Amino acid sequence: MRVAIVGATGAVGQELLELFTERNFPLTELTLFASARSAGKVVPFAGRTYTLKALPGDGNLESDIVFSSAGGGISKAHAWGWAEHGAVVIDNTSAWRMDERVPLVIPEINGEAALNHRGVVANPNCSTIVALMALAPLHRAFGLKRATVATYQAVSGAGAAGIAELQTQTQAALAGETLVTEKFVHPVAFNLFSHDSEVGDDGYNVEERKLTLESRKILAVPELAVSATCVRVPVFRAHSEAIHAEFARPITADEARRVLSSAAGVRVVDDRAGNHFPMPIEASGQDNVLVGRVREDASLTGALALFVSGDQIRKGAALNAVQIGEYLIAHGAVKGAARETTSAL
Amino acid sequence: MRVAIVGATGAVGQELLELFTERNFPLTELTLFASARSAGKVVPFAGRTYTLKALPGDGNLESDIVFSSAGGGISKAHAWGWAEHGAVVIDNTSAWRMDERVPLVIPEINGEAALNHRGVVANPNCSTIVALMALAPLHRAFGLKRATVATYQAVSGAGAAGIAELQTQTQAALAGETLVTEKFVHPVAFNLFSHDSEVGDDGYNVEERKLTLESRKILAVPELAVSATCVRVPVFRAHSEAIHAEFARPITADEARRVLSSAAGVRVVDDRAGNHFPMPIEASGQDNVLVGRVREDASLTGALALFVSGDQIRKGAALNAVQIGEYLIAHGAVKGAARETTSAL
Repeated sequence: MRVAIVGATGAVGQELLELFTERNFPLTELTLFASARSAGKVVPFAGRTYTLKALPGDGNLESDIVFSSAGGGISKAHAWGWAEHGAVVIDNTSAWRMDERVPLVIPEINGEAALNHRGVVANPNCSTIVALMALAPLHRAFGLKRATVATYQAVSGAGAAGIAELQTQTQAALAGETLVTEKFVHPVAFNLFSHDSEVGDDGYNVEERKLTLESRKILAVPELAVSATCVRVPVFRAHSEAIHAEFARPITADEARRVLSSAAGVRVVDDRAGNHFPMPIEASGQDNVLVGRVREDASLTGALALFVSGDQIRKGAALNAVQIGEYLIAHGAVKGAARETTSAL
Repeated sequence: MRVAIVGATGAVGQELLELFTERNFPLTELTLFASARSAGKVVPFAGRTYTLKALPGDGNLESDIVFSSAGGGISKAHAWGWAEHGAVVIDNTSAWRMDERVPLVIPEINGEAALNHRGVVANPNCSTIVALMALAPLHRAFGLKRATVATYQAVSGAGAAGIAELQTQTQAALAGETLVTEKFVHPVAFNLFSHDSEVGDDGYNVEERKLTLESRKILAVPELAVSATCVRVPVFRAHSEAIHAEFARPITADEARRVLSSAAGVRVVDDRAGNHFPMPIEASGQDNVLVGRVREDASLTGALALFVSGDQIRKGAALNAVQIGEYLIAHGAVKGAARETTSAL
């Protein structure tokens, strides 16, 4: 499999490289694309060195699978062009998620949707992935009708610049110095604020809208009722979410825990006696989304409350994308799948 | 008014002293009680010095108003004894909040309940106060039926030790050192975790239970449906809460904003174009609870979503207690109210 990463120097690009090694991804060639500014630089990976390339003008990345994580603008402009040259584009941006031609895929939930791709498969928003890893298995068993979600989102969601800003501002705050805001509008050190995306006329911001619309598409429930409040918190990595969920059939905490315990990609962390529940520091670097605080909603009979934490860069982005790639390869849905499949790693 | 503070060296005790000066509280005598360990120490206040005293064995604090913030154990053991000696005890602990003999009061909401006191008035839990400052005026206009709440609670809720732990751990984390946990079970630096209170059989912790039960008592709606998920975040001061609320009568965002704009103790911060909403750093040190993200719940017709931030030590504790004192004095509900009322400050 000839593989390309577009946006290889970003937080997600770097995580993709780690995952290729860790999962022994069947790549025979690897090409790393970055901005014109970074092109020419040499990066080490898996005992070799790779020279970062600028995107070619003709759209031919000479790759079977392209992981695109260089921002929505790049994917918007180029994804279909790359696909026309034979690649399957696994797009980590929001550019094509809601496009009817593009499957929006979490492999554990709707992997089969990826097989209908026309050259582009979209990776969902990180908050959507983290929520649905818990909600989808419950939906299959009890029929999800409505969910309200309050998020606690790490700065990694804003990329490497977000991570750096939390670090720099926190140092300044502890030293009693003035905080400089660059990536975020508001200080993030020892603070939190409504998600840094545009707010629409109905008061919901873009991140919240994604959670609603993408959940409907992935679960194939067009009328699913979802209301989210998305909040940025001073955490480096891993998003958490407090969720209240209502189902077509009444659900008990025990039933929910049973379903979640056997769900792929989920780890139940629900130790009431030890007051040990999902936390971002324990979700960071993990493949599984942690689910806990599973309880019957005291305010509505038959409904459920729960709390989740998932690595925003890993399952929320890079891991999910790699899993889509693995799923496509396993099901022969990559043109290059018939080629050499011995890993070059 | 002869005033005593029990727990004068704590975070709430210190804030009470600041508020006495700031609001020119009509005190003629001030006695500061602290633990036996601190007794004898001299503390400056308003240009004078005060010697910290240990609690007397006979329960006579020789005061008209006693602000008790030395922990639930002290209030549980002594509050009624202090009251028997003629004091009105304004209790900042959870000891007596749900006791039928004790009014549970937020002056802007149910001040009149304080006038029926039998010697003890309880100050609600900080999370309850912050939520109800927004919900109570909406309840009066539209009839609150159900609320789900996800909290983002500052470490100040765990007192001075909580504040110190966030500071110390954050320094250690930035230096790459091991984090030492003392006050909290889990690391709080760049992390968050389910509230550090005991979890019951139904999966709700004590903090969440307070929010439900206290809201019912304060709003006098015994069947009010409330489900909370209480979470500690790495913020020094001021609690935030994401709230979904359902009412007997359908509510629009405009109507809600109109009601909140004229509500006492509330400041609407809801600038959608500027992405400026309630944040803990802006709520800290403020008397008003900030309310924003006011929007019609996209998941339920007629329901509302909003986000609040309020200073946990100030309106969430010390300010509310002082306001209770002021209310009692103004309505002649303190025995000493007939005495000298010229402020000693």
